[in-house]
Amino acid sequence: MTSSSFTPQCPVPHVESDSIQLAHGEGARLTRRLIREELLCAFANPFLSPLADSATLPAVEGPIVMTTDSSVVSPLFFPGGNIGSLAVYSAINDLAVSGAFPLYLSLALILEEGLSIDTLRRVVASISEAARTCGVPIVTGDTKVVPRGAADKLFICTTGIGRQRKDVDAGVQRVRPSDKILISGTMGDHGLAVLSAREGLDLGDNLISDSAPLHDLVDRLLESGAEVRFMRDPTRGGVAAVLHELVEQFSFAIRLDEASLPISPVARGACELLGLDALHIANEGKLLAVVSEKTAGAAIEALRGHPLGAHATIIGEIADSPSAEVLLVNRFGQVRNIDEPSGAPLPRIC
Amino acid sequence: MTSSSFTPQCPVPHVESDSIQLAHGEGARLTRRLIREELLCAFANPFLSPLADSATLPAVEGPIVMTTDSSVVSPLFFPGGNIGSLAVYSAINDLAVSGAFPLYLSLALILEEGLSIDTLRRVVASISEAARTCGVPIVTGDTKVVPRGAADKLFICTTGIGRQRKDVDAGVQRVRPSDKILISGTMGDHGLAVLSAREGLDLGDNLISDSAPLHDLVDRLLESGAEVRFMRDPTRGGVAAVLHELVEQFSFAIRLDEASLPISPVARGACELLGLDALHIANEGKLLAVVSEKTAGAAIEALRGHPLGAHATIIGEIADSPSAEVLLVNRFGQVRNIDEPSGAPLPRIC
Repeated sequence: MTSSSFTPQCPVPHVESDSIQLAHGEGARLTRRLIREELLCAFANPFLSPLADSATLPAVEGPIVMTTDSSVVSPLFFPGGNIGSLAVYSAINDLAVSGAFPLYLSLALILEEGLSIDTLRRVVASISEAARTCGVPIVTGDTKVVPRGAADKLFICTTGIGRQRKDVDAGVQRVRPSDKILISGTMGDHGLAVLSAREGLDLGDNLISDSAPLHDLVDRLLESGAEVRFMRDPTRGGVAAVLHELVEQFSFAIRLDEASLPISPVARGACELLGLDALHIANEGKLLAVVSEKTAGAAIEALRGHPLGAHATIIGEIADSPSAEVLLVNRFGQVRNIDEPSGAPLPRIC
Repeated sequence: MTSSSFTPQCPVPHVESDSIQLAHGEGARLTRRLIREELLCAFANPFLSPLADSATLPAVEGPIVMTTDSSVVSPLFFPGGNIGSLAVYSAINDLAVSGAFPLYLSLALILEEGLSIDTLRRVVASISEAARTCGVPIVTGDTKVVPRGAADKLFICTTGIGRQRKDVDAGVQRVRPSDKILISGTMGDHGLAVLSAREGLDLGDNLISDSAPLHDLVDRLLESGAEVRFMRDPTRGGVAAVLHELVEQFSFAIRLDEASLPISPVARGACELLGLDALHIANEGKLLAVVSEKTAGAAIEALRGHPLGAHATIIGEIADSPSAEVLLVNRFGQVRNIDEPSGAPLPRIC
């Protein structure tokens, strides 16, 4: 994302102060000015404009899907993204991998007293652009201010509503032995990019977050006719956490093929340097899918036809073994168990 | 609410630590244990139980209403409530005053490293009880952990979905001169209770938050046949902020009758001591409504028939004056302008 995408959407800002004051959260005049002059014009749409305590939305046909996410990433801006677009894509992606068309978002901001208005504007512009790109309006919101030291600059909670697709019937209970495990591209880029930005590590210029909206890619996959059993975006805890969640719920093991794991050279180098495993690191623009063996080829072809899936690959399969394990097979046929770290955390990467 | 209502809902907690660790937010095993053992059992319902990244909900007939709120109140526990029940009622009340039947809630928690598990359990038990009392399930959620000092203990974001009622057609554009302004009870109790708890002020034992869900009271009002033009729950900024928001949007003034303003003796004393005006102080369980003159009596009668509306009263009317002012008339007929404070804030009362 270039710096031009942070151009404020509100051409004539009127908020006098150059930083957030406690009174901006008091519900009175300054709150209304902040909301009207900094937020409403950036997100303008007919549902939000009445500025009531809620939004009234048209009827949705069939089942609806609801998801919520807090974004607490630090730093707020990192190579490839920022907390604003990340908060939008988090909700969009949770809806998409749940087999829903994203329809509406709500936006709750918690601001720390002293946050610069310029920073807020850049984040708001990015939220606005991300929501517009996804075609999903921000229909209602809330803004709170807490005193200095009671929060770290800015937290965002996005909640999304979607319409359940009729052409998808995925779910862990549909997973079968010999099903293939697919990922839409390289692993670990987001977590490593945030970590290097926060710690000031020089891990190479090409370490860039993969933060992106997945709804189009999911469309592409579902429209390919592939038999999709399960979809998830492997964020916190990485691919390993999603796979452990899967095996905990059913009595199959998962075998991953180490040689096929897509990891960029720069991410591989960073992992070696830091002693991390890319399987455990957060992604913010990757789709993990379990697909029937016979349609896996069609699924890969469909994913590769989309820019976000150009490096899609089969990384493993469901093994016909009752042990609930995630196993990694190296190029010499040696097998090791992929455990989950319960310490050594990578905090605040989303 | 008695202390017994904080009894944990999960009888055999297994989380080993007595406080929240960063790893509880990492998305891996400790996150799943925290969610399964502390949250899922407290909120158990068929929508939440699959623990996917979203909830799939039955079709809703007609327009849907969406609202979102962050709760950042300090202290977490105060006379008459706590951040958990407050977060639930905030969403319920925003839906109710928007003319919607509350259906579903999502819950996003931001936890500070070091938060005691016992505190979390008490808040979770209160969320669970409040949601059950309102008959509204928590269908999806998110839990993040930030390092010590990056948040103040615990923030909650609740988002609510409701079904638009067919029997209500309220909106600021329907307000007319001579319409009456009603409030369902005393003003300022919540803000004063939180302030006195936080600052350790001894303002009298009876200073108790009015935190409560308003959906039943709104039902009662709407079913009375009263011509309701506008409803709002006067939270941050108090009754004055809601009325200023009203007059900013249309070209009438509002005249309040000072003698009729319901303020409890203890709140009146606290306001005098602290130099505050109850009109500016947050409420968390009061309904402000604008009702046609000819149905105002029926509206008051309906409200008084409900425990939360026992002290409902008419506090003023819409004046046939083009000046967008909120005026207060005292018992001698003297008129003064109720302005809004833009400094002197009461932060973190909700």
